[in-house]
Order: sequence, then C-alpha cells, then structure tokens
Amino acid sequence: MKRQLFRVFWLVILSFTAQAQTLLVEKQRFETKAFTTESGVTLPAVVVGYESYGTLNEKKDNAILITHFFSGTSHAAGKYSESDPLPGYWDTIIGPGKAIDTNKFFVISSDTLVNANVYDPHVITTGPASLNPKTGKAYGLDFPVVTIGDFVEVQKRLLDSLGIDKLYAVAGASMGSFQALEWAVRYPDKVERLVHVIGAATMDAWTVAALEKWALPIRLDPNWNQGNYYEGEKPIAGLTATMLNITQDAMHPTIYNASFKDFEVLDEPAMKDIRVLPKINQVLAQRAAARARLQDANHVLYLIRASQLFTAGMNQDLEGALARIQAKVLLMPSSGDLLLRPEGVRSLYDTLKRMNKSVSISEINGGWGHLDGLFSIGSKQAELAAFLAE
Amino acid sequence: MKRQLFRVFWLVILSFTAQAQTLLVEKQRFETKAFTTESGVTLPAVVVGYESYGTLNEKKDNAILITHFFSGTSHAAGKYSESDPLPGYWDTIIGPGKAIDTNKFFVISSDTLVNANVYDPHVITTGPASLNPKTGKAYGLDFPVVTIGDFVEVQKRLLDSLGIDKLYAVAGASMGSFQALEWAVRYPDKVERLVHVIGAATMDAWTVAALEKWALPIRLDPNWNQGNYYEGEKPIAGLTATMLNITQDAMHPTIYNASFKDFEVLDEPAMKDIRVLPKINQVLAQRAAARARLQDANHVLYLIRASQLFTAGMNQDLEGALARIQAKVLLMPSSGDLLLRPEGVRSLYDTLKRMNKSVSISEINGGWGHLDGLFSIGSKQAELAAFLAE
Repeated sequence: MKRQLFRVFWLVILSFTAQAQTLLVEKQRFETKAFTTESGVTLPAVVVGYESYGTLNEKKDNAILITHFFSGTSHAAGKYSESDPLPGYWDTIIGPGKAIDTNKFFVISSDTLVNANVYDPHVITTGPASLNPKTGKAYGLDFPVVTIGDFVEVQKRLLDSLGIDKLYAVAGASMGSFQALEWAVRYPDKVERLVHVIGAATMDAWTVAALEKWALPIRLDPNWNQGNYYEGEKPIAGLTATMLNITQDAMHPTIYNASFKDFEVLDEPAMKDIRVLPKINQVLAQRAAARARLQDANHVLYLIRASQLFTAGMNQDLEGALARIQAKVLLMPSSGDLLLRPEGVRSLYDTLKRMNKSVSISEINGGWGHLDGLFSIGSKQAELAAFLAE
Repeated sequence: MKRQLFRVFWLVILSFTAQAQTLLVEKQRFETKAFTTESGVTLPAVVVGYESYGTLNEKKDNAILITHFFSGTSHAAGKYSESDPLPGYWDTIIGPGKAIDTNKFFVISSDTLVNANVYDPHVITTGPASLNPKTGKAYGLDFPVVTIGDFVEVQKRLLDSLGIDKLYAVAGASMGSFQALEWAVRYPDKVERLVHVIGAATMDAWTVAALEKWALPIRLDPNWNQGNYYEGEKPIAGLTATMLNITQDAMHPTIYNASFKDFEVLDEPAMKDIRVLPKINQVLAQRAAARARLQDANHVLYLIRASQLFTAGMNQDLEGALARIQAKVLLMPSSGDLLLRPEGVRSLYDTLKRMNKSVSISEINGGWGHLDGLFSIGSKQAELAAFLAE
C-alpha cells in the first residue's frame, strides 16, 4: 500500500514535469502578394504556414530560422497539443535549455512553397494543388517551377513582416541545408551563423539522377494524368512507391537490417505466387501508403525539381557564391550518408577553409545514414550549443 | 608510295591478327522436358540458350561454368560475328591466354530461365513471355515463381546432356555469384573451384527492399495490366524506369559524376517548365529505353523475385548450407559496391574461414561500384589465373 502510494506520487510528479516541459506550439499563416519566382512567373499571392518557439527580444536580434527537409514541414519542435504522439523533428535540440535554447532564442520555422504534406491539417503551402485564381481550379503543372532561392525569398518576406532584419543563425537538415546555405550566400550581412546538416552545396549528376528515381513512379501512375487529378482519383499508388524510394534512400543498410530482425528470406507465399509480395515489402508499402495519404504527388514532383536545380547562389559560379558568405559555418554531414554523401560536405569544408572563412565540420555517426541528421542530432547537443554561444 | 605500301602491309597484318584473336561464338539451344520448379510446378518443357569457348577434353574435366548477372545473358566472351561492336561482358578474362584460358578450358555459359533480354535475337529462355501450351498464349503471371536453385538445376541438366559430371570451376558476377555459390552448396562433389564476384550469400532486408524498387515502375505502368500485355502495348515506360534504377544502383557516384563532365545544375529549360526533364535525365532515359526495348517486363519481375528469395542452400540454415562446400573459394567483392555491399562478402569470408574452408578474398577497387565486377575484373587477371592453376 505504502509502495503503491509512492508509485502514484512519482507518476504525478513525472506527468507534471512532462507537461511543464511540453513546448506547445501554434501554427500560423503568412500571406504575401505578388511573388515573382526565379523562373520568372508572378504569383498574385503566396501563403505559407509557420510556427515559432521562444520569444523575440526587443532588439529582434535573437532569431534563429529553421529550414525544413524534403518531406518535412515547419514542425521542428514542440507539439500542437499534449496528445500528439510525437513532437517536431528536431525537438531533441530545440527547446528550453536545449542546444537551440528557446529561453534565449526566438526560433522560427515555416513551411516551404510546394510543401509535400498538403493534406496534413497543420501544413499551409502554395503549389500545384492550390487554386489558380485565373481558372478557379488547381494549378496542376501550370504552377511555375520554384527553386530553393524562392523558398528563401518567401522566408525573407515572412521575417521582414515580423521586423527581423538579422538572423542570429539559420539551421537546416538536407533540403533544409540548401535553404540555410542559400540564405548565407544571398544575404551575407543578415546571417551570423549557419548550421548545415546532412546537406550539400550543389547538385551533382548522380544526385540529380537519384532524385529523378523518386519522380518516376508518380508519372507512371495512370491517375497522375499529367498532373490533372484534382477532380478525380489521386495517384496514390505512384506516390506510395515514391515514398518507398525516399525512405530507403535516406537509410543505411546496417540500421535497416537491424530494424527488421524477424526478416526471413524464404518467404513461402512470395515463392508460391508472383502476385504476392514478400512480407517485408508489404509492411513497407503499408507504411509508405500512410505517409502518401497526407501528401500531394505534384508537390513532390516540384520539390524534386527544386532540389535538382540547387546550387548555392543559383548561378554557374559556385566558388563566387561561397566567397560571399560572412556567417560562421558549422557543417554536420553524416558519415554514413548514402544520399547526400559526406564527401561533398568535406569538399565544401576545404573550399571554405581555403577562402579563410570561419568554418568547422563535425560528422554525425549514428548508423542511420542520411537520417542521422534527424535521429542522431542529439549527439551534437553540446557542440551545437557551444557554436551558438560563440 | 613506299610508305603507303608499308601502311597497307601493316593494315593487312593487323586485321589478320585481329581476326585471329576474335573468339567467334555460336549460340546454341538446350531443351529439357518435365522441369519441376522449386515452387512445385512442373513445366512440360524448358528451353535455354548457351554458348561455349574452348574445347572439352576427353576426360571432360576441364569445364568452367559461367553464370550470368541480373540483366546479362550467356554472352560472357567473344563475338557472334566480326562486326559486333562489343564482345561478351567478361571477354577481358575469358579467351586464349587469358585468366580463364580457352586454350586449356572448356568454358560454358547459359541463359537463365526468365532471362530479361527476351527480344535480343541471341537470347533463348523460358519464362512468362513463353507460350503456355495449355492456353496457346503467353504464360504471363501464371508462370511459376522460379529461384536461383532452379537456374542451377537447368544448368545441371545442360551439363549432364554434354556428359560433364564435374566442374573445374564455376564463376559468376552479382546474380551470377548466387548461382555459382548455389552450385557449390548443392553439388559439393561436382564443383572444384568457386569464383564469387560482387555477390552475396543471402539476401538481407535492405536488399530485398532495394530490389522491389526496381519492380515498382513496371507494376505502375498501365500497359503492364497485371502482366497481360502480350497482345497489346508493352509496358515500355515502366520498364525504362526500372532500367534507370538498375543502372544507377549498380554505379558509384564518383564514376557517375566523372562520366558526366559537361553536367550543369542550372538547366534552363527544366527551370522554365516542370514538364521538361533536366537534360541529364533525358539522356539517361533514352539510354534506358534502348535497353528496355530488348527486354520483357514480366521477366524482369521474375528475376527480381528470384533474387529476393535467394539464400545459399535455399533453406533457413545458411551456416549448414555453407558447411557443405568442398570447392576452393575465391571471393571478389567490389570495395565501392553500393548494391551488394562488400561487408556481406567479408562476413561470408569470415564464416568460411571459421569452417576451415579453403577460401581467399580479393577486393576489386575500380571506382565503378557494383559494376567493377564487370568493368574492372581485368585488374584481377593474374590472381584469377593463379587461382585456376592451383
């Protein structure tokens, strides 16, 4: 009895502590008019969602911008409600007392244009699934191609609207690193620190081809119909296949195999009938289908294109672009990354070093491959805190 | 004039030498009746093509079997005619005076069941594109699932028909290594030497999932029609996408990027219109489409399944299977292989070593990744010759 009371006591304390620690966040909406894309088209209006953690100080000089990865959203930390099963993707390092300390910093993160997760109720974005005011129907493929530079420009307008003229830091993983780097190149006097995680400085032939593999299944799905599916069946099968590709490319075989401990090669039903998938593929397909239900296929195609066209500075002169950087730079590739391989980031480090930039590199070794930038970022807590304290 | 005569003289000599060196090969046909697959279905007849180089000696103890890779054929060496642009895929190491010396050995290689290249006039195979005698139409997906074990059994019958009871060696790359290893496990007293190149001993979860990525585009192509397309349009778009996937997975980014020297990230037409692919993707798609024209989509699906189900010995006891091996083993993984990673082969080496088998390992370092097993095999000429001389 005494023991049970003791247990209840601790449960109450623990649950109180947990509640106190939950960072509750609210999704907000930002609209800007007459946005001209890098590809030269003026959209009458652009809307994106954003969220923030911590408080903007009076001088407005404590803002840290977080830019999201390919299949991500602005939800970098905290929960929308206590009952959310999981917090934002970088919650390990963003929050009170964490490396990106919300007791000190005003952390802000926005959904990109053409965000993949159009049917996630917490996502606000503008893209091919949005209504084209000229026709009253979804844009589909008439939406202009957008670039990483465009993502940055929308973020710039959002920050301007809040009176934030300078960023204490900008940090992003994967496609988020592209945006973060582009910020430092495009607005060198506005970015004091750059945290570039599992990223790249430019796309090479191999990565452009790899990204296209993600687009192929969508285009093959008959429901895709050249992007005109908003009034009919959606290309869920194609999009599911795309999600299968993305998940696998983001992982390392070692952790992949470790996470399927009960895997058996000799799958009897799959040996008896070609129409039956091996069990592991069935499980993976179900998971991918669940993700695909929140996403829009055209948006994914536009994200692929935005990534394929990325090179820091968005011109042919990469060295010239990198030379513009004034921010202190922290590069964090994952040693086992098979998608955006660490070699590219090591070479970026060498280039910046040669240019006498303030740059350091710290590789993540978590065993997840590319996903170490999300799942193993906690191992860099102290390093990141120190970098931000400098 | 004198000089010109001299030139003509040399041209004659050179062309004579070249002709003398060209190993001319002839495709042959092997048929066997009542073949029962590992999945338990009896096919009334099975036909495969084969070719051989060198001469079978009287004792019939100088035969070396070459087993082909996933998208390969029996064409391992030589040319079908002088005008062929390229010789067989392992011509570097098979021929008179080469590591697999056709002056000494009788080298034989056959097309597998469900060979991908059904519409290559030099390929003879049995699979879903073959006529089902019961219906008079192509089998389609009613063809039984076949395994690496089945491929071996067909080869066994072919060798039996030639009176070859023992193999001096069996050698194969990639999916060919699966067959070669299966030979050594299944017929330990008939295989004296095993050369296992860019291979594996069993499939892990990651590889099974990776292989499924190749199948996805075919199934999404509306022309695929659950495998019933033999009387209509073929699923060429899906198959082309599959070929794009396979080619990329078989290469290493370093060589990939080196082979696209004029690659430019900022692809203007691709930035202006989402419907226009980046130039590099257009080039790759054209190449893949050319390969797809010779292939059958269902056959590729069956090859994927055969590979997904592979584990040496084809039972749950891999160690028990490996323990059966009596052959001397030479393992040749590629250090940069991203598809069948060298870690697996290193671990196979450790296992065989622990079992006191005669095993050696020699990694290929050619920069091509998986394709080093084909393109850089020449670097192992001396080692291979020494192994075969023992």
